[in-house]
Amino acid sequence: MTPAKRQNFERLLNPRHIAFVGGADAVVAVGETRRAGFQGQMWVVNPKRDTLAGIACVPQLEDLPEAPDAVFLAIPAAAVSDAVRRLAQMGAGGIVCYSAGFGEAHAAGRALEEDVRAALGDMVLIGPNCYGLINYIGKSALWPFAHGGSCPGYGAAIITQSGMFSSDITMSQRSLPMAYMMSVGNQADLGLTELVDLLCDREEVRAIGLHIEGLSDVPAFERVSLKALQAGKPIVALKTGRSAIGQSLTLSHTGSLAGSNELYEALFARTGIISVTNPSQFLETLKYLCVVGAPDGKEVLGFTCSGGGATMLADHGEAIGLRFAGFDATAQDVLADLLPPIATVSNPLDYTTPIWGQPEHTRPVFAKALELAQAQATVLVQDYPAPGLDETEQLYLNDGLAFAEAAAKTGVPAAICATIPENMGAHIREAFLARGVAPMQGIHETLNAIRDAVWWSTARKRISSAAPKPLILAASPIHTRILSEAAAKDRLADAGFPVPAGRQVPGEELASAARDFAYPAVLKMMGPALAHKTEAGAVALNLSCPDALLKAADDMRDAVARYSDQAVTDSFLVEPMAAPPLAELVVGIRHDAQFGLAMTLGSGGVLVELVGDAVSLLLPAIPEDIEDALNGLRVARLLEGFRGQPTADKNAVVAALCALADFAIAHVDEIAEIEINPLFVYEKGVMAVDALIQTCEP
Amino acid sequence: MTPAKRQNFERLLNPRHIAFVGGADAVVAVGETRRAGFQGQMWVVNPKRDTLAGIACVPQLEDLPEAPDAVFLAIPAAAVSDAVRRLAQMGAGGIVCYSAGFGEAHAAGRALEEDVRAALGDMVLIGPNCYGLINYIGKSALWPFAHGGSCPGYGAAIITQSGMFSSDITMSQRSLPMAYMMSVGNQADLGLTELVDLLCDREEVRAIGLHIEGLSDVPAFERVSLKALQAGKPIVALKTGRSAIGQSLTLSHTGSLAGSNELYEALFARTGIISVTNPSQFLETLKYLCVVGAPDGKEVLGFTCSGGGATMLADHGEAIGLRFAGFDATAQDVLADLLPPIATVSNPLDYTTPIWGQPEHTRPVFAKALELAQAQATVLVQDYPAPGLDETEQLYLNDGLAFAEAAAKTGVPAAICATIPENMGAHIREAFLARGVAPMQGIHETLNAIRDAVWWSTARKRISSAAPKPLILAASPIHTRILSEAAAKDRLADAGFPVPAGRQVPGEELASAARDFAYPAVLKMMGPALAHKTEAGAVALNLSCPDALLKAADDMRDAVARYSDQAVTDSFLVEPMAAPPLAELVVGIRHDAQFGLAMTLGSGGVLVELVGDAVSLLLPAIPEDIEDALNGLRVARLLEGFRGQPTADKNAVVAALCALADFAIAHVDEIAEIEINPLFVYEKGVMAVDALIQTCEP
Repeated sequence: MTPAKRQNFERLLNPRHIAFVGGADAVVAVGETRRAGFQGQMWVVNPKRDTLAGIACVPQLEDLPEAPDAVFLAIPAAAVSDAVRRLAQMGAGGIVCYSAGFGEAHAAGRALEEDVRAALGDMVLIGPNCYGLINYIGKSALWPFAHGGSCPGYGAAIITQSGMFSSDITMSQRSLPMAYMMSVGNQADLGLTELVDLLCDREEVRAIGLHIEGLSDVPAFERVSLKALQAGKPIVALKTGRSAIGQSLTLSHTGSLAGSNELYEALFARTGIISVTNPSQFLETLKYLCVVGAPDGKEVLGFTCSGGGATMLADHGEAIGLRFAGFDATAQDVLADLLPPIATVSNPLDYTTPIWGQPEHTRPVFAKALELAQAQATVLVQDYPAPGLDETEQLYLNDGLAFAEAAAKTGVPAAICATIPENMGAHIREAFLARGVAPMQGIHETLNAIRDAVWWSTARKRISSAAPKPLILAASPIHTRILSEAAAKDRLADAGFPVPAGRQVPGEELASAARDFAYPAVLKMMGPALAHKTEAGAVALNLSCPDALLKAADDMRDAVARYSDQAVTDSFLVEPMAAPPLAELVVGIRHDAQFGLAMTLGSGGVLVELVGDAVSLLLPAIPEDIEDALNGLRVARLLEGFRGQPTADKNAVVAALCALADFAIAHVDEIAEIEINPLFVYEKGVMAVDALIQTCEP
Repeated sequence: MTPAKRQNFERLLNPRHIAFVGGADAVVAVGETRRAGFQGQMWVVNPKRDTLAGIACVPQLEDLPEAPDAVFLAIPAAAVSDAVRRLAQMGAGGIVCYSAGFGEAHAAGRALEEDVRAALGDMVLIGPNCYGLINYIGKSALWPFAHGGSCPGYGAAIITQSGMFSSDITMSQRSLPMAYMMSVGNQADLGLTELVDLLCDREEVRAIGLHIEGLSDVPAFERVSLKALQAGKPIVALKTGRSAIGQSLTLSHTGSLAGSNELYEALFARTGIISVTNPSQFLETLKYLCVVGAPDGKEVLGFTCSGGGATMLADHGEAIGLRFAGFDATAQDVLADLLPPIATVSNPLDYTTPIWGQPEHTRPVFAKALELAQAQATVLVQDYPAPGLDETEQLYLNDGLAFAEAAAKTGVPAAICATIPENMGAHIREAFLARGVAPMQGIHETLNAIRDAVWWSTARKRISSAAPKPLILAASPIHTRILSEAAAKDRLADAGFPVPAGRQVPGEELASAARDFAYPAVLKMMGPALAHKTEAGAVALNLSCPDALLKAADDMRDAVARYSDQAVTDSFLVEPMAAPPLAELVVGIRHDAQFGLAMTLGSGGVLVELVGDAVSLLLPAIPEDIEDALNGLRVARLLEGFRGQPTADKNAVVAALCALADFAIAHVDEIAEIEINPLFVYEKGVMAVDALIQTCEP
């Protein structure tokens, strides 16, 4: 983005003056901007009215006192590009274009949208077909509906591809600190990617929330995601359009391209983006990150006062991989002295009702337990009474504030958490926000947020030490050709990938060559119609001697002929039979038009099909990424000395997969797809037992 | 339960008079009962005070005007049994005993609790160590803290093992219809089981919510669960204490015994109990069931007005197995005529903003779509503006009411659902409740509730047609003995379970018998120290001829001697080698002290260990249950003609497992455990390739 555009974005975000252009929608936006507390000048452009929302109208843009820093444009689609051109000539800063009827509606709209883009010059534009922009920090709201939301001086920047969803979020009652809300609509100029780029190094932005229906430029999005990661600003993504129906709805909704879920997840994992599916979780994870940041590890210290909260913390914590480590004997004695006799010292720690609401008793418990546990995060479960039933509210608050004080002293990220999400009123949430404690809603949601934040913190360390290289995109092939297995294995061998020491032999030479082969041997017929060799009868395994091999060749000619007359050839591949492996994997590399080269790694045999034990990662990848992906598979246990078996040579697996990735990258314009299935893994080394390569043809 | 006790429970639930016995806690309970709107007489017993909460005190129980129907007892633990005895003598009805310091605290408390139970006579008692009882229908609250919650004349009966959690629930802001809230504490008299029994056939109770830490009498609980199922009252269970830490906390919390998760889940599945883990989901599922009941099937028709709601419905619906079927071409044309041109006819259906809030346009859309879709449930996504920002509230409400009207005409269970749970205020929720539409909070929570309700409805049909027989409990064996594999297989064969046609032969007879065996053969050494035959070298497979068999026997003697001198025997089992199966299973039956006989069925080979592909079911089970369990395994796909393989003989699997279950049931006092691993499954029939039986010894 040009410096001029960056500067104009700054003007749009923090305008000295805003021009509202339009009728009824402009009236609402004026009202919302006023209500936000905007202190700058507000102008209205409307040729048919004298005043609008109490402001004297000017008939046309050129009548404005000067070029507006920000413009809210709500006029018919057909008139937009002309208005944009005139604003550019005037030197305006940025536009929120609420008008609809562009690319989302019909083909003619796409042309209109192109006109708008062409007219922009150095200006920036959000929309069209969007709700616009709320600046909770600078107090403006270029927004055509009533908006809610609050800001303690910092917060999340939330960017959505659905205006209605962004409105829903501003209406939520969770005290989520909000810095900016942006609804991007058709993304004719500023889209998710550009806005992440523009917002991620702003100090007031502590986390970024993205509602993603689809991305149009994945490599660019990757770059800004990594920029955000480096800036220490976690991104939380709610990707919708995951189902078959959802994807078709997304297409009709904004014209975005919804890519495959696995590749989106691979992208998120690669760039340290937290992925959530539930809107509540989206808000709770953002809230946790904004208020307390990301813990360094999975050890959590939990507190409750009676009730089932301790058990529920432990249950869900264990289910999602957080750890509640117990106290050692010495620590137990120390804490037992501070607690009522009926209390049991454990983690989560139930400090019990005899000291409920008595900070002189609970504060030392919190402080000492935090000191002894050395946990990386802490949570106090508290459900506040409903409005009007607040006799005991002060007791809870006493303990909560004592907890906040103790946590502040140790610096450990601290959350108060209601078992039932709504059991913590706004004034309570704000009391904790003011003390740097995250007011979290729902035990599951809270623990999930901690898990997400810890994941981010780990991902950030990993990626900081070795940032991923740019994705590799190539033109999608029009035609492809399948190499014979022998040719495919030759290519793999050249690439440094271990394959059986095979030999391709014409049928008439089999007899003379038979005694030179290693036995037991495997015989396969090679041919263009033999992509499914097993079904065609074109594979014979475990041949023990030359006679068996020659007989198998005869039988194979007959079997393949029965399968298809056309399929029979006189070309054979003879290989030594591979020894039984410790584990089988399947590895594929393919090219996706949006995401570039992607490697998919899975269990071999029936496991991948029965349990979907597979993971995708985008290329280039570093060896550590490939190893992490491998370790994430269930089949990984087979590599680790399962049931007294030897340990597999995981380094050899990773090295081979790296070689394969390098090969795919080096030949991205030539190789359309590679699949090795199975890949045998041994105590020493690996072997591509079968391989398929498709090449791009002109 | 005796008729006298049932009658006394009725008096406790709907008392003409309540005696509050105690000091400060009694004052609160008087206040809560007043606030609930109680119309009967309220008496207070306190020897030290003249009045309490504005009511003249009597010094002792015997001074009460008559035997109270209900008593709230909040006096020191040591005094409770005496008070209970005197109340029994007076002919009181029932007691809520808030007092603590009983079995939950120490051994002496357990004796006190026993005294209380002995003193009860025909009275009923909730507690001790409990919060008590709120009757939202009859307007009483024997409850020592401020309580919330509301009731539209029907609702859920919620019974918890944590008083604090029950209080948290009453404080929730979800318009969950509440009939009764009961916190059972130590369950000295009435516990979860008794209360389900007493409440499940009351008309005002539409669903039952149980918070379970542990059950003390599983067969009794099963009986009342089935009674509730038959009465058409769904039970939703939130079982806590699932993690290792959680289980130890649960033990310290109320002294309940937390059993193993798998057996609880098996019990829930067997009795049609919906199992949830998240407190919010507990409330949302109960709300859905109370307001609209259980849909008959998984077809859902969704509606939204713009936004990302349609996609989110489709995404999560697909993830949890609900179906949003599209409209056929004719239906599409019909609906297109009713919708704005920008709308796309699909399911979920976005009727788009041009007709937003215009019931004259939206009502026909809802009505026609419901008529055409013939779905079993319907959902309209609506997020209402926050309080104070309600300019558009009426527009949403217009559509919501039109939806309610259309749904009422078709009779299909209908829910309004906010994307973000809190985006639907109490007055909106109540407007829908009044129209029989479930006001649901959270897209995920709503769809999960529908899925749960459909599951219940299916389970009810299944169980109604064949109610499970009572569980089979036996004394746990003190000592056990392992049968030899040969002996175990003999027992299985006698039970009608297919085993290889093996022969046990002394070593010296091997040579003479060798030519009579079928080949290829398997040879195994039998002996008391050979439980792990493979590790001991005591198994030889695939022996092709008598010579190979005899050599294998010699080698085996050496190998086993190397493993352990003591292990070598002169007894061999010779079997024909089993043909390669289509799939391997592992089957075990064991006896649990709480749950009785349980069968565990899993994938054989590495699958069960790598992916935990196993399921447990309690016995006796009908063939359909066993088949369902089998079909729920991932390995089931291998039985269904996977990758062009033949289809397995599933009937033979089920028949064999039924025979095994019958055998275990018939010998419950003799057989401690059975494991068949692997069980080979063929195109025709099955075969127990290895088997282990442990018998109970005196």
